[in-house]
Amino acid sequence: MNAPTSKNHLLPEINQREVPAALIDALKARFEGRCSTALVVREQHGRDESSFDAPPPAAVVFAESTAEVAEVVKLAAQYKVPVIPFGVGSSLEGHLLAVQGGISIDMGRMNKVLSVNADDLTVTVQAGVTRKQLNEDIKSTGLFFPIDPGADATIGGMSATRASGTNAVRYGTMRENVLGLEVVTASGEIIRTGTRAKKSSAGYDLTRLMVGSEGTLGVITEITLRIYPLPEAVSAAICSFPSIEAAVRTTIQVIQMGIPIARVELIDSNTVRMVNTYAKLGLREEPMLLMEFHGSPTGVKEQAETVQEIASEMGGNAFEWASTPEERTRLWTARHNAYFAAVQSRPGCKVISTDTCVPISRLADCLLDSVAEADASGIPYFLVGHVGDGNFHFGYLLDPAKPEERVAAEQLNHQLVSRALQLEGTCTGEHGVGLHKMDFLVTEAGTGAVQMMRTIKRALDPDNIMNPGKIFAL
Amino acid sequence: MNAPTSKNHLLPEINQREVPAALIDALKARFEGRCSTALVVREQHGRDESSFDAPPPAAVVFAESTAEVAEVVKLAAQYKVPVIPFGVGSSLEGHLLAVQGGISIDMGRMNKVLSVNADDLTVTVQAGVTRKQLNEDIKSTGLFFPIDPGADATIGGMSATRASGTNAVRYGTMRENVLGLEVVTASGEIIRTGTRAKKSSAGYDLTRLMVGSEGTLGVITEITLRIYPLPEAVSAAICSFPSIEAAVRTTIQVIQMGIPIARVELIDSNTVRMVNTYAKLGLREEPMLLMEFHGSPTGVKEQAETVQEIASEMGGNAFEWASTPEERTRLWTARHNAYFAAVQSRPGCKVISTDTCVPISRLADCLLDSVAEADASGIPYFLVGHVGDGNFHFGYLLDPAKPEERVAAEQLNHQLVSRALQLEGTCTGEHGVGLHKMDFLVTEAGTGAVQMMRTIKRALDPDNIMNPGKIFAL
Repeated sequence: MNAPTSKNHLLPEINQREVPAALIDALKARFEGRCSTALVVREQHGRDESSFDAPPPAAVVFAESTAEVAEVVKLAAQYKVPVIPFGVGSSLEGHLLAVQGGISIDMGRMNKVLSVNADDLTVTVQAGVTRKQLNEDIKSTGLFFPIDPGADATIGGMSATRASGTNAVRYGTMRENVLGLEVVTASGEIIRTGTRAKKSSAGYDLTRLMVGSEGTLGVITEITLRIYPLPEAVSAAICSFPSIEAAVRTTIQVIQMGIPIARVELIDSNTVRMVNTYAKLGLREEPMLLMEFHGSPTGVKEQAETVQEIASEMGGNAFEWASTPEERTRLWTARHNAYFAAVQSRPGCKVISTDTCVPISRLADCLLDSVAEADASGIPYFLVGHVGDGNFHFGYLLDPAKPEERVAAEQLNHQLVSRALQLEGTCTGEHGVGLHKMDFLVTEAGTGAVQMMRTIKRALDPDNIMNPGKIFAL
Repeated sequence: MNAPTSKNHLLPEINQREVPAALIDALKARFEGRCSTALVVREQHGRDESSFDAPPPAAVVFAESTAEVAEVVKLAAQYKVPVIPFGVGSSLEGHLLAVQGGISIDMGRMNKVLSVNADDLTVTVQAGVTRKQLNEDIKSTGLFFPIDPGADATIGGMSATRASGTNAVRYGTMRENVLGLEVVTASGEIIRTGTRAKKSSAGYDLTRLMVGSEGTLGVITEITLRIYPLPEAVSAAICSFPSIEAAVRTTIQVIQMGIPIARVELIDSNTVRMVNTYAKLGLREEPMLLMEFHGSPTGVKEQAETVQEIASEMGGNAFEWASTPEERTRLWTARHNAYFAAVQSRPGCKVISTDTCVPISRLADCLLDSVAEADASGIPYFLVGHVGDGNFHFGYLLDPAKPEERVAAEQLNHQLVSRALQLEGTCTGEHGVGLHKMDFLVTEAGTGAVQMMRTIKRALDPDNIMNPGKIFAL
């Protein structure tokens, strides 16, 4: 196999296990053209949106059914070789990297919406369905799936990382919206968790155990999700503020008052500038909140008026409204393009993204001190946040030729996470632990809890073949 | 120890393990008057609201702190003796019964509300705090904890059984409302799960694994919960219907339209009659929906008008309103007293309660056929339901002198559960598996999933001392 080639001193040791030729032969015999060992295919499946590098997997199998996933896992299990499920590769934490070698299972062809139960507000999909595809598919029913992490990720990947994003403040995260799963276990068995009932007390919550397990306990192959009626009325608004603090304090008050706002996103002035350059949006280059209100026409009006009132008291400007779907798309494009706009603002840069989440009352404390530190460091960054949930992201834009920048960025992240944990928050609100936050997880959860996770992992995957090397070292 | 005395042929085998005198001596030496072996105390801790019997635990320890719980568990672990946490004994499924003998840990003295974070809408409590005590305690903050299973259960017990109740249709269940836990593990170690952040992707979701684990993976000692602003406006209404079907079809439509109703409870005419007799309420003796609307004054009005419109189309009568807290309490007392009213309607009876939950579109199919079967059986019953969630309970009122009634009731329950599972529902919406639904769990979840639960249990509790004999046989 490839020798370790990590360029990243912060990665855990890369410890490639041998992938026997017999396994590759068996996979090629079984899957023919759908098992690739071409370097370009392997490399494409061996990286994600993180800034980490590792040797690519030994082969990629393009699975077309749960039974096929089970076959791959059984074959891999026979040789004690790792398997790594791959959706679209939008992970930010190195989840897809074959740090211990192994086989990548591309789930992209398992992209069928299997059933839509409009009457029950549930849908069952294969793991390779992306969130945009799902919403396109169910549009005619008047229903939608609200979880929106920005990237057009697969539902399988979103489940595996317990993703959330801009709508979570109102609709919850994958934790709240996955009702049941089909999972291929480490021994290649197919199990089902949960039912289509809205609630259940039937035994251990295997659904929630799998959601957020980052592929380390099994391969998620099918997901039953909650969906929601499209709100009768939707209005989006931008509000500019004289300072980040004013925007944050507005958010805190909105949440504390229990206003059921659907989205409330912070973008700092610097990031607005990047987005303007990237997409020529002509937005006012001040810290802004991007908000969306869902409900009945009266309800939306009521919510928006209350929020405008709070914002004005904090020094915010008058709302700029976007009520047509087109105008709303323009606004949300601005938000979703922040990452790409930022990357383009420093061509060739690598991004380290932070992901802390704190109780809402601590948001100002956590965010403002971290802004001051980031400004003092001189490292270019963008700042966006699902601030209604107390979650925000710095993206430090690093020149790969300047290793000292990475050291400084990791130091900033370390300070930020320490602050968030002290404020009773978490090191990762939605991106997952992956390769990058294993030490933080121990600090956050404590040795005892992480040891319990390890015990569960060892019991369910005794040969450590399910996406090994992620979440914790074994 | 006591010999097996089960009177119930449906109980799993009672398999009392020996509790060595040395352990009792050690507990008495350590806890003095707070370790009791008096029969009356043991018997009180050896039964619950279920109709099952088993010999009582060998001793009861009244714990006053997490450290004390850990001490009891460590001592018990040394002798491989079971420990069973006890809240108020309101389980309906035999969770508290010492079917394998052991030590009961009474959590009732761990009843402190440890911190209220009104700004973050979170509260941290000891496991022995009851839901009414919690609400009393936080009343002055303008916040409330909505989960209401009827009984004034402890928060620890509610977490352990993944309880829900009347408000779940709007506010979710314990699954959605527990943010974090402190747990004493099978080795007597104290761990913490979760943080006060609203969301997190930090490793396995140990919080959700513990919620609903029925004491089999650890003793829950502290719970951090979400709380909510008291709604600006609250209105409750009763609506009588010409048939159960009309009431159920109204509910289905309300839920499918996405109306954010806070409570929607079905009571059948028979049960209304029992409640009238019990509490002299003078309610119209027809199937009824008991509803509650929370929101802004406009929002509540809007919701209620829409629901009234739907109900009228289905043949429902005009709403009878209860807008003052006193009137509302009267209505909810009717609902909460249904169980006691029913028991009193057949003095000396034992109750077997069903707990199926199905997707909302299947509710009429599941419920109406089961009503017909129950009517045909001639066994007296009451029928209430959190129908907004697709969850309802038959309570079969059994004459203990007529064992054939129990057989018939179990048969009815069996038919009901089979129907619910066929309709993609669950055998237990909120009561848990306990002793009574182990076979149903296997049918519902499948052997593979239950085997995964067992593997987790064995890994985390190798000597099987945490409330053994519940959920599954090992």
